[in-house]
Amino acid sequence: MSSSSQLQPVLDRIDADFDNSLTRLFALLRIKSISADPAFAGDCKAAADHLAKDIASLGFATDVRPTAGHPAIVAKSNSKADGKAHDGGRSHVLFYGHYDVQPVDPLNLWHRPPFEPVVTDHADGRKIIVARGAEDDKGQLMTFVEACRAWKSVTGSLPIDVTILIEGEEEIGSKNFVPFLEANKEELAADFAMVCDTGMWDPNTPAITTSLRGLVYEEVKIKAASRDLHSGVFGGGARNPIRVLTYILGSLFEENGRITIPGFYDGVKDVPPDILAQWKKLNLTPERFLQPIGLSIPAGEKDRLLIEQITSRPTCDINGIVGGYTGEGSKTVIPAEASAKISFRLVEGQQPDKIRKAFRDYVTARLPGDCRAEFSDHSNAPAIALDWNMKPLAAAKRALTEEWGKETVLMGSGASIPIVADFKRTLGLDTVLVGFGLEDDNIHSPNEKYDLKSFHKGIRSWARILAALAEAPR
Amino acid sequence: MSSSSQLQPVLDRIDADFDNSLTRLFALLRIKSISADPAFAGDCKAAADHLAKDIASLGFATDVRPTAGHPAIVAKSNSKADGKAHDGGRSHVLFYGHYDVQPVDPLNLWHRPPFEPVVTDHADGRKIIVARGAEDDKGQLMTFVEACRAWKSVTGSLPIDVTILIEGEEEIGSKNFVPFLEANKEELAADFAMVCDTGMWDPNTPAITTSLRGLVYEEVKIKAASRDLHSGVFGGGARNPIRVLTYILGSLFEENGRITIPGFYDGVKDVPPDILAQWKKLNLTPERFLQPIGLSIPAGEKDRLLIEQITSRPTCDINGIVGGYTGEGSKTVIPAEASAKISFRLVEGQQPDKIRKAFRDYVTARLPGDCRAEFSDHSNAPAIALDWNMKPLAAAKRALTEEWGKETVLMGSGASIPIVADFKRTLGLDTVLVGFGLEDDNIHSPNEKYDLKSFHKGIRSWARILAALAEAPR
Repeated sequence: MSSSSQLQPVLDRIDADFDNSLTRLFALLRIKSISADPAFAGDCKAAADHLAKDIASLGFATDVRPTAGHPAIVAKSNSKADGKAHDGGRSHVLFYGHYDVQPVDPLNLWHRPPFEPVVTDHADGRKIIVARGAEDDKGQLMTFVEACRAWKSVTGSLPIDVTILIEGEEEIGSKNFVPFLEANKEELAADFAMVCDTGMWDPNTPAITTSLRGLVYEEVKIKAASRDLHSGVFGGGARNPIRVLTYILGSLFEENGRITIPGFYDGVKDVPPDILAQWKKLNLTPERFLQPIGLSIPAGEKDRLLIEQITSRPTCDINGIVGGYTGEGSKTVIPAEASAKISFRLVEGQQPDKIRKAFRDYVTARLPGDCRAEFSDHSNAPAIALDWNMKPLAAAKRALTEEWGKETVLMGSGASIPIVADFKRTLGLDTVLVGFGLEDDNIHSPNEKYDLKSFHKGIRSWARILAALAEAPR
Repeated sequence: MSSSSQLQPVLDRIDADFDNSLTRLFALLRIKSISADPAFAGDCKAAADHLAKDIASLGFATDVRPTAGHPAIVAKSNSKADGKAHDGGRSHVLFYGHYDVQPVDPLNLWHRPPFEPVVTDHADGRKIIVARGAEDDKGQLMTFVEACRAWKSVTGSLPIDVTILIEGEEEIGSKNFVPFLEANKEELAADFAMVCDTGMWDPNTPAITTSLRGLVYEEVKIKAASRDLHSGVFGGGARNPIRVLTYILGSLFEENGRITIPGFYDGVKDVPPDILAQWKKLNLTPERFLQPIGLSIPAGEKDRLLIEQITSRPTCDINGIVGGYTGEGSKTVIPAEASAKISFRLVEGQQPDKIRKAFRDYVTARLPGDCRAEFSDHSNAPAIALDWNMKPLAAAKRALTEEWGKETVLMGSGASIPIVADFKRTLGLDTVLVGFGLEDDNIHSPNEKYDLKSFHKGIRSWARILAALAEAPR
């Protein structure tokens, strides 16, 4: 039987087993696998062990593999498959996801405990799964695992060879995972990679992401006096590091939204006129994009479309700032130090190392005497532009269009998935980015959610994609 | 016997009993009476009860009195004394201190737990008492209580009538204490007030403070989106409140150190040439004032002396700032809000209400669309200039000079003690400000200390001042 003739019973099985799929996702969501905070290292290990046991139960040869940080999972559907398909052989996909999640603060803004998942009703009647990781990336990666489970359950095998690779440090820059890829590149050889960590165009329109912004993430600490001071004694005479920090960060942007760091826009190209024309047709309005989050005015470069501001233009955001007294009430302190976390989303043509250096030079040049700046580097990924003509992409696009009944959009994303560049560099693999997230999923925020429809039709989508890949020309 | 002939046995008694004085101070320092944090309300009550019991043991008619906030203590050495001395009667002083202390964060910078007092050696060999409140104001107020104890112990009475008034909300603006003064003004009537909450000129030179800066303390919260956002999805398109906050705060100062808020300097006068000439002679150098805290360059208005910057010029400090992710590692969040605490030290001629309004207008005028600012008011006190010629001041000055063997300096202070204006307004009392703090006491900071010499000679100083006041013309 061809894969396509077996597909319908697989889809039926997915529908029949969906309540159990949800139960399995909830078990994973209950594990507090916050990679950024060392206090949760044990939970990260527990999430890896839990997932590995589940994937092993599908007949995958599965290992939890140590790294210098949180462990990774390598699982092979066909332990004899040793990389790229030979002529006439089966396709071999490396599927990637991550079990680690973002921190949950500010905890007081969650309506429910973040690690006690529930299905509830969204304001507009959609059913949603609410928990930290519901979308990013536990819900998304489980769409693929559940699709494999249905294929195995109905047919006893998968239409193509699959290596599942799950990491635990995506949210903190994959620093230990990239060396792991390098050290295991023969074992991880495949025809191409598929990543489930992106979104749809809208709740009814599937999408494949073909470009991603890069990310440079810096932390800067400004230090002045050797201790905290009383502003009654020293106010007016002693340097205040919060004043220095706000002065420097406050000068990062021109009136028109452009970033003032010298050389920041070097190498950045305008979007080609034909693509820009297509984007204009998509008509991404502030009403659609900003109104749901309580805003109305695009905050980026004033001479750019909103869709350019969020996908094709480089940006700078201050993601965190802290200094001095931040408790209740007042304290007349001049603190000894103040710090901020600043990230830059990069586009094609920008080099992360140059951007980092330009930022550090910018800060250092503005430091008054008596102040020092200390920097730490949290992320360093270039932008990605994928090949729109790669063959697995066409098969995935067709399968998604069939499942959702609407033409699949090929879109740029403003986010960064640095692993895509790492797959190309270390394993030589191109990546197809398919995911079922929505803009209102609150990823990285309180009350993260995943539409129940995304989870259900996401599983069905992967079942179709596996079939389509089996029959696609390679 | 005259007070002066009784003085030597009293001073001898202070020396002999000093170890016990220290034990009693330590018992008070162990109580975590942090007024800013509601979690410590019970400790504030415990501190009031503890002090009241100790003062009652000296024969004072003592009450712990409720306020709308933390309680106050009223203790009278002569319960028949009903306010101002009649012709030929005894002088009557209202002594003021506060038992509440500042919060202790950042706790990790303390070398020892802040509420476990010890006597230890300072780097230069001075013996110091280390604890939160060691100086401000538990150590200082106990110098007066111990002086009263010695007088009572040796002579059975005090040279003048004394009402001791201790509050528990000085560090949070005395909002509930001022109404308490108004409601009890007949009971609190006296000839003048004395406050022990200020410093010496240097470790060997006593001082009386004759001017104080005022304080306006504002908190501002900038709100943008209705929830925290992921910078990969929204970066470039959505308003970032940390960016808005740093832009506004970063523009508060001109290159030359002047504050840019329109009208901020209205009414501010230059120091008279003769006073400025005296100040120049005091020769307060950056080496002396800034080097001990690791700095070297005066940070205020460039065309002013350092001593002007810290005492006679109005200032602005950002005392705290917080927004977004401040934990370990990185999080690509655009937060929904960011906030800062900003204080202004005011000088004679500035009106707190006008300064507050000018600041709020300044912030509001710089808000981009889509942002709101919320303000809260933590303090609102005008500057104080005392009468250099008031009679009790001359007696106190003489007594201090005798104890320390160096001429007492009459000096301006950069700090704010709003209660001084409240005493004048509600009770009609002038205040003499005598204290034994030093610039390196780390008040409001980790590792707060009080020199053992300040505590010991502070007690002796008050014993002398009480005697001098008994014999001074009124």
